[in-house]
Amino acid sequence: MAPLHPAGQGAVTLLRVSGPATLFLLNELTQKHQEKDPTAPPPRLAQLKPLWDGELLLDRALVTWFPGPGSYTGEDSAEFGLHASPYVVNRFLALCTALPGVRMAEPGEFTWRAFANGQMDLSRAEAVADLIAAENPMAHRLAMNQLEGGFARKIALLRERMTEFAALLELELDFSQEDVEFADRSALQKLILSVLEQVQSLRDSFAAGEVIRKGVPTVLAGRPNAGKSSLLNALLQEDRALVSDQPGTTRDTIEEPCILDGITFRLMDTAGLRESIDAVEQMGVERTRLKLAHAGLVLMVAGLDEAPDEAWIDLLNLAGKQSKVIVVLNKIDLATEASNREAWQQRFPDLVMISTRTGEGLDLLRDRMRTTVSLGRLAGDFVAVNARQRAALEEAAQTLERIQHGLGHELGTELLAEEMRAVLRNLAELTGEIATDDLLGAIFSKFCIGK
Amino acid sequence: MAPLHPAGQGAVTLLRVSGPATLFLLNELTQKHQEKDPTAPPPRLAQLKPLWDGELLLDRALVTWFPGPGSYTGEDSAEFGLHASPYVVNRFLALCTALPGVRMAEPGEFTWRAFANGQMDLSRAEAVADLIAAENPMAHRLAMNQLEGGFARKIALLRERMTEFAALLELELDFSQEDVEFADRSALQKLILSVLEQVQSLRDSFAAGEVIRKGVPTVLAGRPNAGKSSLLNALLQEDRALVSDQPGTTRDTIEEPCILDGITFRLMDTAGLRESIDAVEQMGVERTRLKLAHAGLVLMVAGLDEAPDEAWIDLLNLAGKQSKVIVVLNKIDLATEASNREAWQQRFPDLVMISTRTGEGLDLLRDRMRTTVSLGRLAGDFVAVNARQRAALEEAAQTLERIQHGLGHELGTELLAEEMRAVLRNLAELTGEIATDDLLGAIFSKFCIGK
Repeated sequence: MAPLHPAGQGAVTLLRVSGPATLFLLNELTQKHQEKDPTAPPPRLAQLKPLWDGELLLDRALVTWFPGPGSYTGEDSAEFGLHASPYVVNRFLALCTALPGVRMAEPGEFTWRAFANGQMDLSRAEAVADLIAAENPMAHRLAMNQLEGGFARKIALLRERMTEFAALLELELDFSQEDVEFADRSALQKLILSVLEQVQSLRDSFAAGEVIRKGVPTVLAGRPNAGKSSLLNALLQEDRALVSDQPGTTRDTIEEPCILDGITFRLMDTAGLRESIDAVEQMGVERTRLKLAHAGLVLMVAGLDEAPDEAWIDLLNLAGKQSKVIVVLNKIDLATEASNREAWQQRFPDLVMISTRTGEGLDLLRDRMRTTVSLGRLAGDFVAVNARQRAALEEAAQTLERIQHGLGHELGTELLAEEMRAVLRNLAELTGEIATDDLLGAIFSKFCIGK
Repeated sequence: MAPLHPAGQGAVTLLRVSGPATLFLLNELTQKHQEKDPTAPPPRLAQLKPLWDGELLLDRALVTWFPGPGSYTGEDSAEFGLHASPYVVNRFLALCTALPGVRMAEPGEFTWRAFANGQMDLSRAEAVADLIAAENPMAHRLAMNQLEGGFARKIALLRERMTEFAALLELELDFSQEDVEFADRSALQKLILSVLEQVQSLRDSFAAGEVIRKGVPTVLAGRPNAGKSSLLNALLQEDRALVSDQPGTTRDTIEEPCILDGITFRLMDTAGLRESIDAVEQMGVERTRLKLAHAGLVLMVAGLDEAPDEAWIDLLNLAGKQSKVIVVLNKIDLATEASNREAWQQRFPDLVMISTRTGEGLDLLRDRMRTTVSLGRLAGDFVAVNARQRAALEEAAQTLERIQHGLGHELGTELLAEEMRAVLRNLAELTGEIATDDLLGAIFSKFCIGK
C-alpha cells in the first residue's frame, strides 16, 4: 500500500492497496468487529464507507474495490480516498500495516507488479515514469506515444521480420549435413540492412529525446557586466536573476527553464568568467567552466563597451569545442563605441546584436536558438528511446553490422544463427520479455512512491 | 473544479468537478469530437477513460461519475485520477476551464455547496475543516463527533424543548385579551434553567476544545544558560534546539509540539530573558515577553547554579499573572550549591527538581504538566464548540438569563415571547439554519482548495 501523492494540506488523500491481502484489509477496516462479512464489494464502485479504528470511527472514506486482473497492477487492489488529516492518514497507515501481509509499497512497486503480471511491457512501464515527469508538450507526447505502445510495436515488427529468418537458419542447422539453404541469403541481406537502419534511427532518437525530455542546457557566458543576467531576465521575461551594475554580482548558478516552440532551454546564469582574487567569485568561475563542459548551447555574450580580445576568444574556443555557440553582442543601444561594433561584426559575421535595455534583437536571438538546436520535423508517432534502450539498440546495431559483414563474406550458418539469436535477444530485452533483476531494479528505483 | 490535494511529485493527481456542467465536461473530454455521446456513464463506477486534447491523447485517467443528489456536494460531480504529470494536470485544467460554465473552485466551495444543497448542517461543514486539520487523536475525536452530528443533535434537542413552550407563549399572545396562561410558568422556569446550564456548559467547552485542537502554548522562560534548550530537547527527546554553553545561543523562537496523554504542548523556546547590548539578542527578548502574554503554561526554569533573586521573581510574577506556571529547578546533579537548593525549595515548595543531564525528575515534570492543564474526564461523545459557536451560545445564555430573571419578576408574555424567539434564533444560527453571507464567507474562507 502507498499514498498516491505527497502529503500536504489538501482535501483528500488517496491511498492504494494492492495484492492478495487487499480484500481482507478492506473488509477488516470498513466493518465493525462483530459484523464482519468476507464478501467483496461490487467491483470499481466508489462507495462511502466508515473506517473503523477498533470501536472508534476513524473516518468516512470513498472506497473503491478493483479486483484483479482488471486492475492497474493486475492484482486485487483498492483505493481509499481519506480526509487529508495528518492524524487520519497516519493512523490509517498504521492500522493497515498492522494487518498480516500488509506493508508499505516500494517506489515504483505498483508499476513493477503491473509489469510482472503482464499488464504492460517494460517500455510502457518506463513511459509511466516519463509521463509523470513530463513538463512540456513534446515530452508529454513522447511519453504518451511510448505508453500507448508505439515503441513496443516498432520493436515487435522488427522482431517478427527477424524471427522468420532466424527460424529458417535454425532449420538449416538441423539439416546441416545436407548443405541446404532454406534462408535466401540475398533476401536476408536486404532485411538485415533495413532492420539495421531502423535500429540505428531508433538509437539516434535518444539525442532528440534527451533534448525534449530534459531540455537544452544553455549556458550564458562572457565577461562580468556583459549583461548576462539581464539577458536571462529578458528571455524569461521576469526578474529572476539579481541584476546590478557591480561586476561579479552573480555568485550562485541560477537555472531556469524557458520553453520556445515546445523545446525547453534550461538557461544557466553563471558567475562572470574572469580571474578573480575573491575566493567566492573564484568558486563561481570554476563552476562556470564545469557547466560549459555539459552545455548543449552556449550564448557567448559581450557588451558593446568591450572589444573582442584574446581572453574572450579563448573562452569562445573552449565553449565551441563541446557545444553549439551563438555569439551575442549586447548593449547595442550605446551610441558610442562604433569602432567596437565594427570589430565584433568583422570578427563574427553571424553574431546576433541585441539590447536587453530596449528589447531590440531579442526575437531574432530566440529564432536563432530554436534553429540552432533544431530537432527537424518530428512525426506524430515519434518515439525517442531512453539511455537503457539506446544501449540495447547499440548492441543490436553492432551485431547486425557483424551479420551484414558476415553475409558479404559467406559466414557459416552456425555463426549466423548465433548472431541472429543475439539480435533477437537484444530486441526482447528492449520490451522486457527478457530482463534481469538488476535491470528491473535500476528501472523501477527511479519511480516515486505510489506508482 | 479543483485538485483535491497539493501538486507535487506523486503517481496520481485527483481532481473534482461539481455543478451542472459536469456531465458535459466529462463527455466532452473523454470522447473524440466525431463520436460524442451525451449519455451519462454508470454512476460511481471508476472507469479508465481516454482524455482527449482535440485529436491528441492527453492521458488515460480513472474517471468516476457521481450524479447528484447522492454526491458530496449534492450536485452532479465527477472525479478524475490523472497521471501526476505537471504538463498533463495543467493542460487538463486549461481544457476544462475553457469549456463554458467551468471555472476553478474557491477554497471550501465544494463543502459550501454541500451545505447550500442541504447535504450537511453548518456545524458539520465546520467539522470537515477541523477533521482535516486534526493532528492528534483527541482533536480527531472532537472533529469526528461534530462531523457525525453530535453537536447538531444536542442543539436540536434544546430547540425542540424550547419550541414547544415558545408556541404556547405565541398562543397566549393570540388570546392576550382573555388573560389566559397556556404555558405553565414554573415548568418554563425549570426548562430555562436546564437549557441555560447546557448552553453554558457547551459554551465553556470552547476552552477545552482550544487546548485539544491547538495545544497548550507552553513557554520555557528563565535566565540565559538555565538549561531551557536542554529541557526542550529532553521533553522532545531529540536534538531540536541548538544547545551550547554560551549564554544567548537561542535567537529565534523555536516551537515544537510534544504530545502527552493526547494533549499537545506547543513548547516554545525563546531567547534568554535578560537585558542585552546585542541588538539581535534584544529582539529575541522582546519576543519572549510577547509570548509570555499568550502562554497557557509557563515553565520557569532556573539552574541550581543561580539563586532566586529579584529579577527572576519579577519575571515569575509577570508570567503568573496571565498563565499557569510550573517552577523548574534544573541542574540538580551539580554536587555543590547546597545553599542554593535550600533557598529555592524554601521559596517555592512546589518546584519540580530535574536534571536534563541525568534525566532525573523529567517524568515528574511531565506528570505535573499534564495535571496542571487537566481537561478533566471527557465523555466519548464530547463536543467542543469553536469561537463562532461560543459567541452564539454566549448570546443565547445571556438571553436565557434575562428570561430567567424576567420569570422571577412576572415579565409580560409579549416580552417573554420575544426573548424566546431570540434564543431560538441563536440556536438556529449554530447549525446554520439561519446564516448570513458574511458568516458563511468567514467560515468557508478557512477551507483549503479542493474541499
